[in-house]
Formats: sequence, structure tokens, C-alpha cells
Amino acid sequence: MSSMTFMSDLFSTIADRGRALLDLKPGHHAVDRDIGGLAEALVSSRGEASGVALARSLLELYEGLSDQDKIDFFKLLVSDFGPDLEILNDTIERYQQSPDATSVIEIHKAAEPSRQELIRRLNLAPGGTRALVSMRKFLLTQVRENPDLKALDSDFHHLLDSWFNRGFLVMRRIDWNTPAAILEKIIRYEAVHAIDDWDDLRRRIDPPDRRCYAFFHPALVDEPLIFVEVAFTESIPDAISPILAKTREILTPEQANTAVFYSISNCQAGLRGISFGNFLIKQVIDDLRQDLEHIENFVTLSPVPGFVQWLTSNAQESAGLNADEKAALEKVQESGWQDDTSKAENLGKVLLPLAAHYFLQEKSKGSPYDPVARFHLGNGARLERINWLADRSDRGMQQAAGLMVNYLYVIADIESNHEAFASNNEVVTTNEVTRLFKSRSTR
Amino acid sequence: MSSMTFMSDLFSTIADRGRALLDLKPGHHAVDRDIGGLAEALVSSRGEASGVALARSLLELYEGLSDQDKIDFFKLLVSDFGPDLEILNDTIERYQQSPDATSVIEIHKAAEPSRQELIRRLNLAPGGTRALVSMRKFLLTQVRENPDLKALDSDFHHLLDSWFNRGFLVMRRIDWNTPAAILEKIIRYEAVHAIDDWDDLRRRIDPPDRRCYAFFHPALVDEPLIFVEVAFTESIPDAISPILAKTREILTPEQANTAVFYSISNCQAGLRGISFGNFLIKQVIDDLRQDLEHIENFVTLSPVPGFVQWLTSNAQESAGLNADEKAALEKVQESGWQDDTSKAENLGKVLLPLAAHYFLQEKSKGSPYDPVARFHLGNGARLERINWLADRSDRGMQQAAGLMVNYLYVIADIESNHEAFASNNEVVTTNEVTRLFKSRSTR
Amino acid sequence: MSSMTFMSDLFSTIADRGRALLDLKPGHHAVDRDIGGLAEALVSSRGEASGVALARSLLELYEGLSDQDKIDFFKLLVSDFGPDLEILNDTIERYQQSPDATSVIEIHKAAEPSRQELIRRLNLAPGGTRALVSMRKFLLTQVRENPDLKALDSDFHHLLDSWFNRGFLVMRRIDWNTPAAILEKIIRYEAVHAIDDWDDLRRRIDPPDRRCYAFFHPALVDEPLIFVEVAFTESIPDAISPILAKTREILTPEQANTAVFYSISNCQAGLRGISFGNFLIKQVIDDLRQDLEHIENFVTLSPVPGFVQWLTSNAQESAGLNADEKAALEKVQESGWQDDTSKAENLGKVLLPLAAHYFLQEKSKGSPYDPVARFHLGNGARLERINWLADRSDRGMQQAAGLMVNYLYVIADIESNHEAFASNNEVVTTNEVTRLFKSRSTR
Amino acid sequence: MSSMTFMSDLFSTIADRGRALLDLKPGHHAVDRDIGGLAEALVSSRGEASGVALARSLLELYEGLSDQDKIDFFKLLVSDFGPDLEILNDTIERYQQSPDATSVIEIHKAAEPSRQELIRRLNLAPGGTRALVSMRKFLLTQVRENPDLKALDSDFHHLLDSWFNRGFLVMRRIDWNTPAAILEKIIRYEAVHAIDDWDDLRRRIDPPDRRCYAFFHPALVDEPLIFVEVAFTESIPDAISPILAKTREILTPEQANTAVFYSISNCQAGLRGISFGNFLIKQVIDDLRQDLEHIENFVTLSPVPGFVQWLTSNAQESAGLNADEKAALEKVQESGWQDDTSKAENLGKVLLPLAAHYFLQEKSKGSPYDPVARFHLGNGARLERINWLADRSDRGMQQAAGLMVNYLYVIADIESNHEAFASNNEVVTTNEVTRLFKSRSTR
Repeated sequence: MSSMTFMSDLFSTIADRGRALLDLKPGHHAVDRDIGGLAEALVSSRGEASGVALARSLLELYEGLSDQDKIDFFKLLVSDFGPDLEILNDTIERYQQSPDATSVIEIHKAAEPSRQELIRRLNLAPGGTRALVSMRKFLLTQVRENPDLKALDSDFHHLLDSWFNRGFLVMRRIDWNTPAAILEKIIRYEAVHAIDDWDDLRRRIDPPDRRCYAFFHPALVDEPLIFVEVAFTESIPDAISPILAKTREILTPEQANTAVFYSISNCQAGLRGISFGNFLIKQVIDDLRQDLEHIENFVTLSPVPGFVQWLTSNAQESAGLNADEKAALEKVQESGWQDDTSKAENLGKVLLPLAAHYFLQEKSKGSPYDPVARFHLGNGARLERINWLADRSDRGMQQAAGLMVNYLYVIADIESNHEAFASNNEVVTTNEVTRLFKSRSTR
Repeated sequence: MSSMTFMSDLFSTIADRGRALLDLKPGHHAVDRDIGGLAEALVSSRGEASGVALARSLLELYEGLSDQDKIDFFKLLVSDFGPDLEILNDTIERYQQSPDATSVIEIHKAAEPSRQELIRRLNLAPGGTRALVSMRKFLLTQVRENPDLKALDSDFHHLLDSWFNRGFLVMRRIDWNTPAAILEKIIRYEAVHAIDDWDDLRRRIDPPDRRCYAFFHPALVDEPLIFVEVAFTESIPDAISPILAKTREILTPEQANTAVFYSISNCQAGLRGISFGNFLIKQVIDDLRQDLEHIENFVTLSPVPGFVQWLTSNAQESAGLNADEKAALEKVQESGWQDDTSKAENLGKVLLPLAAHYFLQEKSKGSPYDPVARFHLGNGARLERINWLADRSDRGMQQAAGLMVNYLYVIADIESNHEAFASNNEVVTTNEVTRLFKSRSTR
Repeated sequence: MSSMTFMSDLFSTIADRGRALLDLKPGHHAVDRDIGGLAEALVSSRGEASGVALARSLLELYEGLSDQDKIDFFKLLVSDFGPDLEILNDTIERYQQSPDATSVIEIHKAAEPSRQELIRRLNLAPGGTRALVSMRKFLLTQVRENPDLKALDSDFHHLLDSWFNRGFLVMRRIDWNTPAAILEKIIRYEAVHAIDDWDDLRRRIDPPDRRCYAFFHPALVDEPLIFVEVAFTESIPDAISPILAKTREILTPEQANTAVFYSISNCQAGLRGISFGNFLIKQVIDDLRQDLEHIENFVTLSPVPGFVQWLTSNAQESAGLNADEKAALEKVQESGWQDDTSKAENLGKVLLPLAAHYFLQEKSKGSPYDPVARFHLGNGARLERINWLADRSDRGMQQAAGLMVNYLYVIADIESNHEAFASNNEVVTTNEVTRLFKSRSTR
Repeated sequence: MSSMTFMSDLFSTIADRGRALLDLKPGHHAVDRDIGGLAEALVSSRGEASGVALARSLLELYEGLSDQDKIDFFKLLVSDFGPDLEILNDTIERYQQSPDATSVIEIHKAAEPSRQELIRRLNLAPGGTRALVSMRKFLLTQVRENPDLKALDSDFHHLLDSWFNRGFLVMRRIDWNTPAAILEKIIRYEAVHAIDDWDDLRRRIDPPDRRCYAFFHPALVDEPLIFVEVAFTESIPDAISPILAKTREILTPEQANTAVFYSISNCQAGLRGISFGNFLIKQVIDDLRQDLEHIENFVTLSPVPGFVQWLTSNAQESAGLNADEKAALEKVQESGWQDDTSKAENLGKVLLPLAAHYFLQEKSKGSPYDPVARFHLGNGARLERINWLADRSDRGMQQAAGLMVNYLYVIADIESNHEAFASNNEVVTTNEVTRLFKSRSTR
């Protein structure tokens, strides 16, 4: 145990190094004002002797650049820091003459852009990882307008994906004893059900029937990568407001039989495309199963961000809406109907079967149209239930006509569910949802 | 500060995960007895849903294999987990038609053996990094007899080099408050001047004029990667025994003006080829300069492991030994001469100039013949002094005729020294050594 | 360093023990429903074998008592858990026959109420210290109406004073990385200038020119005992609002030459009468002097809580107010005059000299009338300056007519100032304040 | 949890303060060369303003004193730092006039020697607690020759007993991950079965069927107060050598049903008379019961340090030895008989009943003659079994003729056992021991 604490001291060093950079005024240490020249030096043999110092200088210089200068730097990396094509061509020739393991490896090495070595060496600087994640965050905002930057992003993605391998991540519980600096980020990064203020935050992390877990990486001090909020309930919930309510009866963990994942938020824009959610959910389930043996259900209460967008776009045409549904489509776009019981009830009769169709049939590039469905079904969860008027917030009404969905994680089925989904695009669901779906198609 | 400790808790999780695996009896959890099948599954889409579990099973299964079965598994990885050659050929064709950034990236991706993805996914398992380092350790012992395994080692090297990037390492001081489990490894891994027992260890880490620093990686709990032992002295030392003496006058750090790096040991055979020493020495110098402003000299007291081997092999022919030197060569191979003052003095007159020649002229593949010289000169240090009868231990006599060398690190000169060395094979040294060298050649 | 972390692990145990008790439902473990009987058992020999369990039961039982039952329990302790008078009388007799060191010690022992042993044994329980501090907090609210409880309070004070000896306290910086659970208490316990919300808190602990420090005790987890808020400024401040302003220019610590202690709050009502402030201020000064060598002035910006109360009570009669002063006394009690520049200016001319009189002359039981003056002068500080319209808040106007005071801590003078104060009731001050004082008396 | 780590940081401060003092050369900071004058100042009002500095100076000065000067200082404390007898006499008078709660408290206060306040104020210094414990350690060595120093020791004992209340102690497991600086002390302080070297230590703390636990106090960094070594076995052991054996079969904790406390050592001579062992054993039992539910027996394997001493002294006369026993008494004092099977067997027949008599009947001041028996029986354990030839080491033979004893801790019986022992001097034991006893008495 104290060996753990010995090791745990390690972090202070990482942290101090990380902080060190941030405290520096841009350019303070930079001896070389030409960022391209610094990059050149860093990948050269000079970088071997003085890599840490050069990387530090380059990152400081970069910090002080204007947006346009940053973009120009990125473009320079794309144009001038690719692989050496002469060597690549040679290796290809050798490969084509004798296509064996050795010649393939040589191609792989020769085809690696020197940008990748540059990024690896930038990571030598104190706070380098943080700076690189931040650099990619900005890069991603520029790719649409500058598609040639995709090559650079591909390098970033390749390295960050390897460095942020789940084996290097650690899951921590977030609670009322967590440092304020981290809690503040939880408030800021919450992407599903906004956290109003510190009182709201406390309601989500402090009571005995609430949990919050996050992944961290040793080199990104103080920065959650992703977090999930969990509520313990007595049954699978069909609406979000009882969970978020300011006043409610608090359960002891022993009273609950269900763990509800009601909010999952990615925190780092610079790590886009690197998947943490699947691992986080499964780790939380693992841990909860050990701690709380009486929890039987591990289920989400998820938004349906694509439903109204689908319904009101051309995409729905494939569903062949009937007259009732077309009428419903009109009404959905009005506001306030959720407070009119009979209107809402009538709409529900039409929209629930349509939602079942949406989940079971509608695809985008072969995967479910709905991104949240894509995520949980891809993780091996089952589409458990579609809940009517489950989220009456403005956002919930606008994007999903108030619908929310439960995805159920049954440990024993995860792999087969995933296989069915990955191989055959099959959406595993319940009889109830299937009946809903059929009620429409047989109409 | 307490945010640091928050982060530092993270390690316990990593550690527990790491320990978990080691405690398992081999095969305990493995459901699938075919390691090839498991590897196949892990890189397939099944690996996306159940990567952690599959990786764990595979590593457990591997642990239980015989050496021969491990080798067979390695061979399978080389033969069956390379890149998809059809795709590779397609991308080469596309590249040859339009050689642009995109097509180059595609080649790079297509040429990547699926072994690399396999290794990345094995890292998902608790303790995965440790298991992979251990796997490579065994692999390295097999490469000479099975040269085709080099392809697999190349993949290991590529990934471990990226994962053990200096930006992810943390330096810790090793002292008498360090957990015994780590100190025990310091005793075991010391490769230069063996540590006899716990008392000897204490003499090297506890007194105020001794320091020891090591690099650690967050995912390799309890495992130093490399460590360096430092002595504070009043001048640049010319022999090792006063430093290792059981009884000696202990200085306060304030009395010293020199920090002597008298032992550097790599600890992880599985990380061979990944360079830490350069970074460690420079980090220690940085830290000491901040703590102890009166330390002026940062210098090694290094062995000369190649000298006698060079002298007694054909290699020395290039030096054109004269009669005296040939006579000395005979005497050196006798034993006990170091205790005969006049014999030793006479030998010194001949061997010191020859050693200067050895350091300044003798090359192996363009670099200094002596591996320790290669390392420090490559780091930008200067060959400061050659010391006669500096190491009278059996080992010191046998490999270096008692010679030891000081390499001096002058911060301001490191980069230019390195440049001179890297570009022109130039060995930067002092007038004294140059004079020694000339005294022979002009003879 | 890692030995530190070994030791630091210790706290988790203390903490867990502390938490354990609090989580218990009252009476959950209590086997014996009679608290008096439990107390009896605890001080008896039964308490030697089963002290921890008995103490735990008693504290749980106590938690569940009504206020009146608690008071009855306290009364029982006073009546039945005093010293054994027979033994006491014997020892007095022996002492009177032979008054030596031994017989005096025997008296001391015999006169000790068995309540003290009871309290010591209650401390054996997990969370015992916390429970005892809380018990005394309630006790203190009852002493006025039940003066006989003073005997019990005297025992509590004696033991807590010894247990919370400064040698056992640790000072921690409170900043934005401090756990929210502790920050929340800082908000709640701030007694001088209320903290409005988390944003206000952050303004006081996070910027580089703000600091906050607290004392903690190992056995009172998560509970600050006292804290002080510090601002770094460019000169000795003469008003509080620039310090508390929402928007202001933030200094680097290097720009400042003055550290201002602008708020000191005791946190634990159950530790009343145990002095921490003196030690905290001096420790903070010590630490800041080491960290920030350019800080020259260590000074407070303090309220004057007794001024208006003194002025409007009979107490002022001793000052012999003249006509102007009597008129001012009337005006002071009106509201809003601080916003009328000429009114305020005229009042200032009268009130500042009167305040100087108040500080230099007015005593209560030989000490300065003003409690804050008593504290800082008793610590060895000097009355540096009286600031007009320095606190225009409602509270500041009502209790001090807007006055605030700087007390200056000059390390070299602390001891002599304290001596002058302690021995001769002398208030060390500046020529400026003396002049103010004389301007009145000579009028 | 991170709040724990926040709190745990606290220790570093305590520790640094503690270290600070030790690093000082004696007298370095002392401004006042007269230790009596410093003591005077420290208890005076000067001590209120400058307590920390004065305490520090005094302790530094003390460190540099010769033994004789220390003794003189102690004597000064006895003669000049007692209570004020005039005041004491006044309070006695008042008490005799009106013997109520108030007047009793006044006597208690007046009878307190000012030495106690001096000791409390010495504790203000960084490292004060450690220095005071060390001061008492030396004091205890002087009391026999200077009985008047008992008064001072009484004050030390009173305060240390209160400060080292079990409520402030923390129990830590000692294992192979514990810092070497602490392990080294375990080796040094082991008082029952000496630890030969680091390998021997490791055999006692590292295997899964071995445990070691120690109590620590927050203010005594790195210093275990007491520790206990535990072995897990498959039955109640009847000899020590299988437990200490260099090579033996190692059990998993699950295979064991018995936890054997085979060594308990107090570490701090300066805390003599303050009892930790009772609390430590019970805490370890509590913790093991939670962790390892299958452990049924909590038992010691204890030495019998008084047996041979009793047997060979006049003390045995009370037992009325018969002829066989007298003969045995002779033989016991020879050496080597333990290796002669028949001799040993014959001796056993005589000595075992005599040992039963020794445990059940022989008293010193009303308590069992044997100090280890006194301790465990006083804790509420039961005398379970007397083992013949259980410790064949020189020490075991010399002090106990090879006998060892098991004391069994049965949680449910602890309190009643203790009561029987404390009230009636009753030694609770088994039928087997009773039979042994009777076999002698009825002979």
C-alpha cells in the first residue's frame, strides 16, 4: 500500500512538469523565433541531444502564434514533414522484388511521415501531452476549411489513440471530496443535462444514491477525459426529471436494484475519435457489481438526439409516413403540447411506433441513424424501452419530442449482442419494442 | 497540491489492476484454450466489445505456455498477423498513380502489421503493459536463433518506444524512505558496481552526500526503468574505491562542488533499445542545479568496458602497437601487477597514451569502439580525463586494466559537443587527453 | 518523501474510524440503554478491557438523547464523577503533615475529577475526538443557564487544550484544488466578511495575489479549526472593498510588498477558549517570508467590533466626550451619512481622535476594550493605523462607524511589544496614532 | 477519498517540522544559553508570544547538554517548577471551608506543577513531541539513582498518556512495501524473537500467511510505537521454530484457521507505562475478522519470561516443591538436556504440572507472577495451553526451560474474563491446564 503511495508521488512530478509549462509566458525561453526551424531541429539529430529544450521552445512559440500562423505551421507540417519519398520508393521497389516480412516493415517505416516523430518529440517537453491535445483541438476546428490538414490530424489521431490506450487510463470516483478545480470542469463539460450550479452538482455526486466516475490520464493532470453520472433507483426509470429533481427521497444504496447511467460526457475536444465511453461504462459496471451485489440492472436513460431531426428531414421518407404520422409530424413541431394531456396521449400513440421504426430500421451508413443508439448498441447493450414524455425540457422536446430510451447492459449478453450488431446490423431489443414496431408496420 | 494528491490516487487503481493479473494462476480465467484463436478474436470486431476480457485471457494463457509454445505463438504472429498484402498492393498502386499526402498515409496504414493492433489491445488488460514488457524480454532472448522474429520485435519496439516516451516518465529520488520492494530491485538491477547487501545499499542512498534517482512509468508499478547513483565530492574523482568505501568522511552537500554519476543501470531487459539514460542524466543535472547552486561540475566516473577486449583482439592491429606496447599487452593479462608499484607505474606510461588513442581513434561502425564512451559522447558530454588504476576490482582489472574515465557534462556545450560528435564523429576532449594521445603518436 | 506518504496513509485510518461513527444510527450498537451506567462502566476496570466498545456505545447513546437528557447527563457527570473526596482529604492531610513534591502530586491526582478519565476514555472510540468537540459545543450553550456545568466545561477545556496543542496541528493552504467538502466549510465558517457563493470563494483563494491557510488536527478529519485569508498588495490597505472587489487588477506575488490578513475565522465552537490565531498568523508569516522574500509588511486590515457599542453605551463616559463628540455620537447612529462627503469628513475629524482614545485608553478588565485589538496586541502586533470609512458595509457602519484598523506584525518587535502589553498594558503604536490621540486630549 | 489524501498531506508538514529540529546542530538557534532561564521564560507570559521560538531554543540547548547537565536540569524542574504552594494552601483552605465542585477544581489546578505547562509549551516546537519522548527516555534511566526525579516523570507520564490516547493512534500494516527506514526499526525493536537480517524480516512480513501491524502517532513520524507479528496457521501452534523456519510450506490465508500473535514489541522506551498492546491486539483481531472470515482462533504463542527465574529463586518456596521437582530444578539448570529425548520427557512430566501451578497460583502483588501472563490475562485472554519444549533457543531454555504458552482471545469472553481477573484475581483457563495443575497438587 505504501508502495502505491510511493508510486503515487510520481504524479506530482508529472504534474509539476505540466504546470511548469502553463505558467510560462509564451516565448519566454524560446531562443529560436522560427517555428519551422525549431521543428526541423527537433526531428534532426540536434533533437536527440536537446529534445526536451527544443520541444519546450517550440511549444512556447506555438502558444504565442496567431490563429493564422498556427494554420500556416500546420500546413508546413503537412507539406514538409511527410515521409522521404525517395526512400519510400526504394522500399516499395525492394518489396515488389521480394515481398517478405522485412520489406513490408521497411515500407511501413518509410511511409511514416516525420510529423509523427515530431509529435513524439514534442511530447518530451514538460506539459507536452497537454499542449499536443490542445493543439489538436484547434487543428480539428480548421480541418473542414483546410482539408489538406487531414493528413496532420491523422498523425495526431494515430499517436493519441496509442497514448490514451485504456491500459493507461485510471478511473476515479468524483464526489464531494474531489478538488474544486476538477468539479468545476465536471460542471463545464456536462453535455447532456446541464448542471446549473454547485448545488446542482452536489445533488448529482454527493447523495448515497448517486455516483459519478471519470477516466483520467497520468499526463493530463486535473483533466477528466470522460465521465458518467449514475443514479441508483428502485426500477428502470422512464423519465429524467425525477432523477434531476431538487427535492426527492434519497435511497440507501441497499434499497436500489438498478444503476442508471443518465449522462455520459466526453471532455476533451482534442481527443475526438478516441473512444473511452465503452470502457468506462464496463469498468463502472464491474466495480458496482463488486461493491453492490444487489444491483441487478445496469441501464441507461438516454436522449434520442436524432429523432426529430430525422423526422423533419428528408430522411424520414424511407419510413413511408401514413396520414396520422404526417399529422403528428406537424404537431410535434408546435410547442407546449406536452402539457396538454390528451394531445400528448394521441401523439404518443403515433410517435412511439414510429420511434420503434426509427431505432430498428433507420440506418446511416449501415449503422443506426441515432448516434446514441449507435454507441450503446455497438457496446453490446440491448434496446430495452422507449419512454414517452421522458424529457420535457426544451432540448428534450426539440430533439426527441420528449422521448428517452433505456439501453440495458446484460453482462452475459454483451458479446453476442455486439456480434449480432457488428456482423449483421442487428438491433437486439425486447418483445415490447418489437411489438411497438410491428404495431406500425402492420397497420 | 491536494489536486496532485487527488491525481496521485490514480496510481492505486493502475497498481491494483497490475497486481490483479500477477496474482492469477495461469489459465485461471481463460475460457479459450487456443491462443491463436484468442489473438484472432482480439484484433477482430469481437475485440471491440470485449477487448479487456479477451486481452486478459490471452495474457493468462500465454503465462502458462512452455517456452517452445511461446516461440510458436511468436512465429504465428509473424506469419499470420502481418498487414493485408492485397490492400497494401492496392494502396501502392494508388500511390504510384497519384503520389500525394493521402496516398502516402494509406500506404503507411496498409503496411502496418495487425500485430501492432494486437499489442495495443493486449495493453487493455489489467497489468497489460507489464505483461508486454515481459513478453518482449523473452522474445529478445529468442531472436538470435529465430531471426524471423525480428519482425515481431520491431513492432514491440515501435510501440514501447512511443509508450515509454520521456513525457510519460517520472523521476523519483530513491532513498532510505523508499519502500523495500523497490530498494530490493535497485540491489538486483545494479549493473556497474554490485551492491553487496542492504548496508551497502544504504551507504549509497542515505548519506547527505549521496543521491540516487530513477525513472518510473505509471503503468509499471514498482519497477524502476533506469537509475543513476550520484556522489557529491570536493573534486573530480580519479578512483572508484573512495566513493564505495565502507568508512569515509561524509560531506554536507554544501561542502561539495562536484556531482559524480558513478553508476547508471538499465533495469528492464524488455525495454532494450529504448533510451532513457540521456534524459535521466539531464533531468538529474537540472534538478541538482536548482537545489544545490554551488555544484559546479557534473561528471561521470565511468568504466571502460571495451578496452582490454579491444587490446587483446585483432581490433588493436589498427593502432600499430610498438614494442613497448606489445610488451605491456602481455603484462596486462597477468594478474596482480596492480599491487606492484613500479610495474604498475611503467605499465601506466605505456597504457595511458594507448587508451587516449583508443578513445579518440578507435571506431566501430563510425562510433567510438567503447560503448560507454559512445553513450556519454552521444549525449554531448566531453571526454575529461583518463584515470590510471582507478578501479582495482577484478572486473575493473579484467575489462579495463584498471582504467576509468570522467565524462564531463557542461550544459552550455552539450548541444555543440553532440553536433560535433553526431555530424563529424568528433570526440570533444581536453588538452590533457590530446597531449596523451599525441605523446604516443609522435613517439 | 515516500516515508511521508507512508505516514500520510495513516490519516485514512483515522478518517475511516471517524466516519464510521458518524454513519451509525444512534443506538445501533448500544447494548446498554443507561448512559450513566455506561459512563460508570467506562471509568471502571471494565473500561480497561472493553474501553473502545463501551466508549462507542456511550457516544452513540448520547447522540440519540434529547437536549434535556443531554443536560441531565452533564449534571450527572458534575455530581457523580468528581474526585473521591475521602481520598482527597487524606492526601491533603498527608500534605499538610509533610508538604513535599510527592504529597503535592498526590493532591493533584486525588483532586482530578473522574470526569477527566471518562473524557479520555470516550476518546478511544472511533470518531471520539470529533464527538467530544461536538459535545462541548452543546455544553457551552447550556452553561449560562446551568452554571454548575462550568465544572464539566473546565474538564473539557483542560483536555482539549492539551490535545489541540499547536505541536499537533498542521497548517494547510486552502486553494482551488482543495476538496469541495472543505471549501464548503470555509464558506460557512467565514465570520468576518461573508463569502457570498463559490465565485466569491474562488476570488479569495485562487488568484496569485490571494492566499488562505488553515489549521487542521489529525483526529478531526475535514474540519478546519481556524483559517486566515491573505491578500498581497502594493501598500498597506486603508479599505476593505478594493480587496473584496469582484473585478480588480490581479497582481503577481512579485509585484506585492505587503501581506494583508484581512479575515481570521475560528471554525469550531466546541474548541472555544483554545487559542489558535496567534500560532496561525505567525506560521503564515514564517512561511511567506521563506517563499516570498520581497514581502516587507505583514499587516492586518481588521474590524473594530466594539467601537460603536462602546460609544453608545455608558462605557464612553470615562472618555468625557465634549460637545462636538456628543453631536457626532448622535449623527453616527443615523444611517447613510457615509455617502454624504462633507458630513462624513466632519464626522471623521471628530471620530478618528476619539477612536485613537478608544484604542489607547479604554480597557475592560485591564485589557483593551476592543476584542480584536486585544487579540493582535496580545500577539505582539503594533497598532499601525486607524482608517476612516474603510468598511462601508452595513455591518462595518453599525459596529465601527466604518472604521478599520491595521495591526502590523514586525517579527523583531513581537516579543518586546508583547512584553510591554502583557506587563504594563502598554499599547504599542505609531506616532501618527499618538498624534491623533493627543489632538483630542489636548483640545 | 481524495479528502483523505488532502488530509494526508498534513503529515508532510508535521514531518518536516519534526525533521527540521533534528537537522539542527545543537545550539544553532539558541540565543539564550541558560536553560533554566529559558524554561522560566517559556512558562511566563513571554512564552505566550514567542512560545514556538523559545521551545525550540530550549530543546536545542538541551540536546547539547552533557548527561550530568541534563540531570541537573531535571532537578531544577523538580525543585523550581512545582505548583505555587501559597496558592495551593489558599485553595485548600477555601475547599475546607466550602467543599464544592468549584473549590475542588481550584485545588486540582493549584496543585498542578508548572512543569506540566512547561512540557505542554515545549511541545509547541517543531519536533517537540519527539524530543519530549526522547527526554523522558533519558529521564527514566536516571530515576533509580535520583528518586526525586519521579515527580518529573509523573508529569511526563500524565501528559504523554493523554497525548498518546488510543484515539490518536493509527494502525498500519507493515509489509515489504513499507519504507526501509521503518522496516529497519522493526528489525531493531523486535524484542521477543530477534530478527537476524533483512531476509529474516522479509520472511515475517511478506508471505501471504504472515502479517505485521504497528501503531503510529501523527507527531512521531517514522516511529512505530508497538508492533505485533502474526502467523496464519492450520491449528494452534505448540512450538515457535516451525513459525520462524527459513524454509517452510507457505499457506494461502484461506487455508488457515488460526491467527497466531507470536511476537509483540514495544518500541519507545520514552513511552514506558503507556499501554498500547491491549488496543493493538484487539484492533488486529477486529480487522482480521473482517478480512478473513474463516479465521476462528486468535491466539498467542508467548514466552514465559519469569518461569525459571521463579523456579530458581526463593519465590518457589511457596509452591512447596516435592523431591521430584527439586531434582528437576537441578536438571533444568544444566544445558543440553532438551536434546536428550528421555531426559526431556521425564522433566516434562514434572515441570508441566509445576508450570500450571506457576500460572494459576503464583502472584506478585496480587497479579500473576509472570509478566506476559499478567498482560494477556489482563486483556481478557484465556490461558489456553502450556507447551513443552516449544522454544529450544538459548533464551527460551534459560528463561522458561523451553516452555511457551498459548493465550486465547475469544471476543465474546474478553469482558467477563477480564472482570474475573480484575475483580477476583481469577485466571481463566482450560480443563487441560486445570487437570495439569491438579495432577500436581493431588500428588
